[in-house]
Amino acid sequence: MQRIAVLTSGGDAPGMNAALRAVVLAADHYGLEVIAFRHGYKGLLENDYFEIKPKDVLHVLQYSGTVIKSARCQRFKEVEAAQQAAANLNALNIGALVVIGGDGSFRGADHLANYWHGQVIGVPGTIDNDLYGTDATIGYATAVAIAMDALDKIRDTADAMDRVFIVEVMGRDAGFIGLGSAMAAGSERMVLPELQKDKPLTIPALVKHIQKVQEIRGEGSYVMVLSEHQWPGGAVALAEQLEAEYHLPCRPCLLGHIQRGGAPAPSDRILASQLGVHAVELILKGHHRVMAGIRGNQCVEVPLRDTWEKKNPLDQNLLRIQHEIFNPVKKKPRINPL
Amino acid sequence: MQRIAVLTSGGDAPGMNAALRAVVLAADHYGLEVIAFRHGYKGLLENDYFEIKPKDVLHVLQYSGTVIKSARCQRFKEVEAAQQAAANLNALNIGALVVIGGDGSFRGADHLANYWHGQVIGVPGTIDNDLYGTDATIGYATAVAIAMDALDKIRDTADAMDRVFIVEVMGRDAGFIGLGSAMAAGSERMVLPELQKDKPLTIPALVKHIQKVQEIRGEGSYVMVLSEHQWPGGAVALAEQLEAEYHLPCRPCLLGHIQRGGAPAPSDRILASQLGVHAVELILKGHHRVMAGIRGNQCVEVPLRDTWEKKNPLDQNLLRIQHEIFNPVKKKPRINPL
Amino acid sequence: MQRIAVLTSGGDAPGMNAALRAVVLAADHYGLEVIAFRHGYKGLLENDYFEIKPKDVLHVLQYSGTVIKSARCQRFKEVEAAQQAAANLNALNIGALVVIGGDGSFRGADHLANYWHGQVIGVPGTIDNDLYGTDATIGYATAVAIAMDALDKIRDTADAMDRVFIVEVMGRDAGFIGLGSAMAAGSERMVLPELQKDKPLTIPALVKHIQKVQEIRGEGSYVMVLSEHQWPGGAVALAEQLEAEYHLPCRPCLLGHIQRGGAPAPSDRILASQLGVHAVELILKGHHRVMAGIRGNQCVEVPLRDTWEKKNPLDQNLLRIQHEIFNPVKKKPRINPL
Amino acid sequence: MQRIAVLTSGGDAPGMNAALRAVVLAADHYGLEVIAFRHGYKGLLENDYFEIKPKDVLHVLQYSGTVIKSARCQRFKEVEAAQQAAANLNALNIGALVVIGGDGSFRGADHLANYWHGQVIGVPGTIDNDLYGTDATIGYATAVAIAMDALDKIRDTADAMDRVFIVEVMGRDAGFIGLGSAMAAGSERMVLPELQKDKPLTIPALVKHIQKVQEIRGEGSYVMVLSEHQWPGGAVALAEQLEAEYHLPCRPCLLGHIQRGGAPAPSDRILASQLGVHAVELILKGHHRVMAGIRGNQCVEVPLRDTWEKKNPLDQNLLRIQHEIFNPVKKKPRINPL
Repeated sequence: MQRIAVLTSGGDAPGMNAALRAVVLAADHYGLEVIAFRHGYKGLLENDYFEIKPKDVLHVLQYSGTVIKSARCQRFKEVEAAQQAAANLNALNIGALVVIGGDGSFRGADHLANYWHGQVIGVPGTIDNDLYGTDATIGYATAVAIAMDALDKIRDTADAMDRVFIVEVMGRDAGFIGLGSAMAAGSERMVLPELQKDKPLTIPALVKHIQKVQEIRGEGSYVMVLSEHQWPGGAVALAEQLEAEYHLPCRPCLLGHIQRGGAPAPSDRILASQLGVHAVELILKGHHRVMAGIRGNQCVEVPLRDTWEKKNPLDQNLLRIQHEIFNPVKKKPRINPL
Repeated sequence: MQRIAVLTSGGDAPGMNAALRAVVLAADHYGLEVIAFRHGYKGLLENDYFEIKPKDVLHVLQYSGTVIKSARCQRFKEVEAAQQAAANLNALNIGALVVIGGDGSFRGADHLANYWHGQVIGVPGTIDNDLYGTDATIGYATAVAIAMDALDKIRDTADAMDRVFIVEVMGRDAGFIGLGSAMAAGSERMVLPELQKDKPLTIPALVKHIQKVQEIRGEGSYVMVLSEHQWPGGAVALAEQLEAEYHLPCRPCLLGHIQRGGAPAPSDRILASQLGVHAVELILKGHHRVMAGIRGNQCVEVPLRDTWEKKNPLDQNLLRIQHEIFNPVKKKPRINPL
Repeated sequence: MQRIAVLTSGGDAPGMNAALRAVVLAADHYGLEVIAFRHGYKGLLENDYFEIKPKDVLHVLQYSGTVIKSARCQRFKEVEAAQQAAANLNALNIGALVVIGGDGSFRGADHLANYWHGQVIGVPGTIDNDLYGTDATIGYATAVAIAMDALDKIRDTADAMDRVFIVEVMGRDAGFIGLGSAMAAGSERMVLPELQKDKPLTIPALVKHIQKVQEIRGEGSYVMVLSEHQWPGGAVALAEQLEAEYHLPCRPCLLGHIQRGGAPAPSDRILASQLGVHAVELILKGHHRVMAGIRGNQCVEVPLRDTWEKKNPLDQNLLRIQHEIFNPVKKKPRINPL
Repeated sequence: MQRIAVLTSGGDAPGMNAALRAVVLAADHYGLEVIAFRHGYKGLLENDYFEIKPKDVLHVLQYSGTVIKSARCQRFKEVEAAQQAAANLNALNIGALVVIGGDGSFRGADHLANYWHGQVIGVPGTIDNDLYGTDATIGYATAVAIAMDALDKIRDTADAMDRVFIVEVMGRDAGFIGLGSAMAAGSERMVLPELQKDKPLTIPALVKHIQKVQEIRGEGSYVMVLSEHQWPGGAVALAEQLEAEYHLPCRPCLLGHIQRGGAPAPSDRILASQLGVHAVELILKGHHRVMAGIRGNQCVEVPLRDTWEKKNPLDQNLLRIQHEIFNPVKKKPRINPL
């Protein structure tokens, strides 16, 4: 094999550029050519590509987004699409494809592998951290940092006015960004998908919690982290309802895609650099249909299907600390363990 | 006179702490004692105060919010409230009151002055920049910086996905933050109260503009700045309508009170330092019912009533540049001026 | 005229890209072609250029540096160089040249104008703010913001350890960055060229000031801003001498070129956008040998020679506030002005 | 036991406040009182303490430094000091002491444990990451983030001017900050203590590397990370020598204590929160003379002596990637592994 290909797919994640750079630099180190497809699977289907060289990626790791562009591609679920992609890859004489993306992109990669003989390697690039088999995904640390920074800013004004705020963060169906940012910013409350299952949020319970916290602390600032899709209409609707029904002044904030931008956090750049190199070395070792991951500081490979079929759970100790130990309203343990 | 008082009132603004610090340090320099009321006019009415010393304010200028807290106080519009405040100030033997806040706070200060013989001095502290008589208000520069930073982050992902974004910014009824951040971030479009009067936003016109910009530029990222109160339901509703009616993928972002937090921008700290000192020196010179302001790098005093009765217009040259010269869809001037 | 040229020259300044973008977008608006020379005057002499289009500059204003590169060019002082440049410009049929840079670059522009009939327009791009005729130069606000951010960080550790720090900032021969950052960060002391003339820094006087400040405040953090070239060996040498001679624990910090990087501050981007457009419109109006500047929010033109021959003084009120009113050791005014 | 004590000692590290907060909140959760000593061991010796409550620490985790102050205390190495400390702790009826600090502080804690019967628990707070037994120390992630941010800023100007820069970073005798920031920022070269042993830096070899990199890449920006204590006189001296001996324009930058300030990174706040809680729970479980650490996402306890007697090595894979695979001048592997 002399040629590999790379693409970024699905929602962009900070650090994708660093992963791309690592793939290109490692391939150059080992004497491989690299073809980059633009706009993810869309470019693969449309043969929109260029030969990417070290000079194209030298100084891209400090930027979010992806210089080879990304896209979502519904069409790639079809059999014909995978066959077309396989034909395009073969025509270009490509022996392996590195897909940088999240679970939808990995499903696409796995689908392609049914119709293509080349090696398919995934690199986990998503802010949601919802892939099994790796301690972290590329982009997650940056998203937490940006959400935390927003929460820090909100604290300033919440404190000055003794006011309640609801900040809606991303995470698709997982509470990683919510938990990470709530803990990092010292939020009074977090509403995560994982906590909703046991005890879904209700407005009366929320109002009671707010009042108790304000009473215990003797001050009024209360900042709540709300994961997306956990309340109809999100933070905006919830804040309106609190004001309308309980005359409780409350302001919403919807971070949205801000969480995907800015300078990638160092740990995302370092993780992406490791995983990009690891992906190339997995190719050299003949691996196939695996994701390059990190577990306890060790590089690992994970069957692609496992990454979405198995569940990456929240860290239970972090959850316990933030939800119970740091929650001023939680009951104290009845028996002092000493 | 040996004693002056200070309070922060209305929505908090980054730099209020720097203004407070400057008042306290300047008063100390000139041998005056300073009483700080907590929570704005509320604290003044409830006699919630303490003697504030230089050591209380040494290292507060790097933080947003206000260490003496702020509040909105509807009750202060009443005659009895002003009379109560006057009585409290007299009982404390206070000769002058410095009010750091926006137009609502200045109306309160002017109202108080009808019932109190002491000097009343305003210091313009509001992110909205909507006060007449000063080139800038304290907090405006920081709000623009935070909005710009969010727009920069959005650009990264907009570029990666060739996508449309709507970012809602503050400004009450003025387009300062919208214009400043749109220009600083190179937005493709801005919807400001001042522009709405001539030609209100419509969805068909917006879609047409988006399509033309994408066509002219040959790429898809389009970031729009939407001032608050310019569309029913704001950025969230507008994005939903674009998707529903035109199948145009579009993501909203609601910055909210993030714009009031974080480290105050240097120009806000410097402006606040100047105006805080200026307020104390205006007291020493016997001024009354004026706002301390800056015009073309000169300290000025402005009658309090002028600050809200007269209009602070947007810079027409900035508006022209951002709205016409940098607008790719605007018609070129018919006659080349050369 | 159909064609103008642009170059960036001398030390790069944050916002140069925004100025370049504004020149290109304004030229496009008015139907002019733009040629960009790479690496400043070096590229002009070597005919290293390309036609620059709006699409080349759309998303450059969020980055520092200059996408057309800059350089210092000693050779451009020679008569032959100016003649060569004139010949190159004429061969390319260029009617006007916009030079974005500082005083050295403007001297070059003026020198060129002796040998070239085309219009020469300067745009002030330097972090030092040491050009006469404009309220601010492009890059100055960002440099102050970065220096302030460093001073804020230093304050955290200075406070925790009750320790003395010396932070060396840029400014060539002017104290603008020093004064701005010292005021914005609330430094205990600043050593600026403008203050050195009256009363040069001595170690015994510094030690005495440190001890008095610590005594008055009852705490130990002391952060000093040192303008470059104000002490032999700079902050590193001064800190060593304080430790060696007075056993006073003291840590140095040399910001260096960090002050030129990062995301340009909003006011630099806005200023650069205004001045870039203004430069093109000055060309259209037939101006020559002038710098595009801003004075009290008005666009102005300033004879190029004035920009370096006349002196841009520090704001005397800011100096008085930071150096006297906020200086805890300065004598209080003997007579209370009341 | 009803009472525990806490102190922060040695060089401050971002996240110490978050660790302190976690100790106080966890103690409150389990019904323990907490005494905080100010200025580390100095306060312990001088009985300078106060009872610290949840309200004292609610909103401290967003700030660097330490609200209970830190100090280095040479005297604490003496037997009499440990005896005095033991007596003070006993007089206050304290059952356990949590020491937040680095290896010097842990030596002090171990020394104290020779003369005091109470439990001694260490929490790793140092930017240097040089403690055995934990994947990371509190403050390390922030220091890397700040160094990376500085390197990103330097890249902007290095790129604009095609110039060489040397940025000196902290790390005491370990290359963690150097390696992390060099990799995160994509530096062309790093000089770390661990690499110096094999092949110490020489100026001719450095010049050769610079020239080769510039030749291979066809562009001039070259940013080198220099760990402290790896060159006599540091970055300033090395840059001067490169200019003087090789006429190679080169600029130094000395980050210094900036690396200890600013908003702590999310991972430092989360780590600190975990370890603070873990320390309290180790006390409840009766542990003694151990450090609370994290290994592969699991809370662990490590004998105090191990933390400095055993060596925490650099991640060899990261070193290999940054030093070999991403080094453009390194020889390609002779045999293609395919």
